[in-house]
Amino acid sequence: MLIVQKFGGTSVGDLERIQNVANRVVESKKAGNDVVVVVSAMSGETNKLVAYAEHFSSTPARAEMDMLLSSGERVTASLLSIALNEMGHSTVSMTGRKAGILTDSHHTKARIEEINPEAMKSAIQEGKIIVVAGFQGVSMEGNVTTLGRGGSDLSAVAIAGAIDADLCEIYTDVSGIYTTDPRIEPKAKKLDKISYDEMLELASLGAKVLQNRSVELAKKLNVNLVTRTSFSNEEGTLITKEENIMEKPLVSGIALDKNQARISLMGVADKPGIASDIFGKLATSDVNIDMIIQNKSHDDRTNIDFTVPISDIADAKKVVDTFMNNGDIEADSYNEKICKVSIVGVGMKSHTGVAAKAFATMANENININMISTSEIKVSMVISEKYAELAVRSLHNAYELDK
Amino acid sequence: MLIVQKFGGTSVGDLERIQNVANRVVESKKAGNDVVVVVSAMSGETNKLVAYAEHFSSTPARAEMDMLLSSGERVTASLLSIALNEMGHSTVSMTGRKAGILTDSHHTKARIEEINPEAMKSAIQEGKIIVVAGFQGVSMEGNVTTLGRGGSDLSAVAIAGAIDADLCEIYTDVSGIYTTDPRIEPKAKKLDKISYDEMLELASLGAKVLQNRSVELAKKLNVNLVTRTSFSNEEGTLITKEENIMEKPLVSGIALDKNQARISLMGVADKPGIASDIFGKLATSDVNIDMIIQNKSHDDRTNIDFTVPISDIADAKKVVDTFMNNGDIEADSYNEKICKVSIVGVGMKSHTGVAAKAFATMANENININMISTSEIKVSMVISEKYAELAVRSLHNAYELDK
Repeated sequence: MLIVQKFGGTSVGDLERIQNVANRVVESKKAGNDVVVVVSAMSGETNKLVAYAEHFSSTPARAEMDMLLSSGERVTASLLSIALNEMGHSTVSMTGRKAGILTDSHHTKARIEEINPEAMKSAIQEGKIIVVAGFQGVSMEGNVTTLGRGGSDLSAVAIAGAIDADLCEIYTDVSGIYTTDPRIEPKAKKLDKISYDEMLELASLGAKVLQNRSVELAKKLNVNLVTRTSFSNEEGTLITKEENIMEKPLVSGIALDKNQARISLMGVADKPGIASDIFGKLATSDVNIDMIIQNKSHDDRTNIDFTVPISDIADAKKVVDTFMNNGDIEADSYNEKICKVSIVGVGMKSHTGVAAKAFATMANENININMISTSEIKVSMVISEKYAELAVRSLHNAYELDK
Repeated sequence: MLIVQKFGGTSVGDLERIQNVANRVVESKKAGNDVVVVVSAMSGETNKLVAYAEHFSSTPARAEMDMLLSSGERVTASLLSIALNEMGHSTVSMTGRKAGILTDSHHTKARIEEINPEAMKSAIQEGKIIVVAGFQGVSMEGNVTTLGRGGSDLSAVAIAGAIDADLCEIYTDVSGIYTTDPRIEPKAKKLDKISYDEMLELASLGAKVLQNRSVELAKKLNVNLVTRTSFSNEEGTLITKEENIMEKPLVSGIALDKNQARISLMGVADKPGIASDIFGKLATSDVNIDMIIQNKSHDDRTNIDFTVPISDIADAKKVVDTFMNNGDIEADSYNEKICKVSIVGVGMKSHTGVAAKAFATMANENININMISTSEIKVSMVISEKYAELAVRSLHNAYELDK
């Protein structure tokens, strides 16, 4: 098999851990696989460099930050290559440039535009283990770029797609994707497989193992993604296309997002275009709207409720205030004491009654549902934050996810 | 003027010092100059990375060492660029690659083959301050290379040559070139100007401010080199071509090299080719021979004396032993308690009696001269190590270098 293995900052956090990573890579190689390794900077390094830059400027030029920050991954890549070499393996380390990772010119958050895998392919043919410095690429103008948060995962997925790897393993400090957060429900089970779409829903709902950008790219490039831990030999979770999952469970997981707030706008003038005006201005202010409910209140006025991330409340309030001043909104209220509980599963597509069971479960526990939104593979409910853990455990039990 | 300014590891050793460097660069810029800055890694960084590599292997691949070590200069270059930018100047940092520094493929000790200054020239035309990561280039195959010890000085000189700079300032922790080591002779004076050839002699004789590779390159490219300190505004020493020095002093400086040992071979068989055989094998063993004296001893045997760096004694002894075993050499002795005192000056070319005064000065102090060698601009004498400081002070006084 041709395998891409990505190790994050904590997995290469010190020299001993880099040696552990080398041992693991050698194991895969000895098992007969071709291996391309993608590494992050040693944990703490990137933060140190950012602090250095901020010593000189609160707004350092983005191109300079890329020059600065891309050095951390180069260090890890060459050290791991040296360690593998010492263990008797032919190796080569590659910068993003050498690996052929071409990006646009949006420094510090560049997007991969194209991968030219020729250098990697010929190194693989020579039997070499390749160690790629993650998180970085090179712009069409020839300047070093970085890919933003989660960038090394993106490097790994894009490389796996470009060289047509059988597997892309993302090593972190957690062992895979669980039916729900084990800190809330100890009976939570690790999933063997999950579809890209389910993973995307879970990630956007607060499961932090993988960023959506990486999962979206894996889906687009049809890359079999595995998330697992570098600290044990435990098997991880395979994220793959729906067709590869034979037994489609009704529900795969329960996600909890406590980071949402509910904004209620009362007595909104019922004139044409007012809602689109409000939400248009919120979008311009980079406020991320999730769920929206609109209902008639009195006379020619309506009420609008919506949810935003807690960190966006201040920006949202500024927008709302302008409409209050115009008299287009009579009153507003902000409630951070809510949460969003979601059930996710591809099985919902072909089964009815999944949502009904969720509502019944909430009713059994006397939990009031404030807002509901559904998609083809998800049901989300906004409830009072104090019921968060109870709701998760009840739903986990109702759908028998511990079985 | 177009000035290249190079700052070594101690000059950029911490964030405060990098800010000091930024202030100094801005001063030059404000005085109406165009400035290209070349920086080393922050002091300690390179050693740290070497130690990391040696944790994994005692013989790390050289190409990987280049990937590893080249990261340090990139960090300094981007930080300095950010600092300059914050002070209101348009800046750009450049890797060796971006600056167009093309080298051969001898990793960890690559030689600069060519510089393509287009990127630098157009940045200068845009009024930008350029900050180049020193010590590094890129091979014709596109791999990062490093230039070995003193590599950042070489980067600076080569760049100065390529962009036809008026001046190349090398900032270190010493303020220039002195008539002799001020720790030995407190009356030593800093030289305003010195010729390339004098500098080369002084450097090879133990003056450690600049490496010969850099001075040789400066001579070849006709670069006006200034060595000065980054810790004060004191003027430094200009190293330039002889024609630029109007008043040519008889003697410019006195150099002392305590790092030499004298090897005496007694009763060497007086057959054809034996000396060339001995010195040929010493050369093959990388033993650096300096001075040689051969004289008839008895019958068909001769004595040969020569000097080598103390660190080469062991290697030399191995070679000598093989000739002892053959009976081609009767006896050998090794004396580390010697030193080499040299007087250097372009004025010697046109004046006689310079060497005679040196010998007379030694005689006055009752110092026995063991060996003598001369060149067009240098007289070297091997004497007992215990007279080293006395000899330097007497010569300094005899040639009135404190005047």
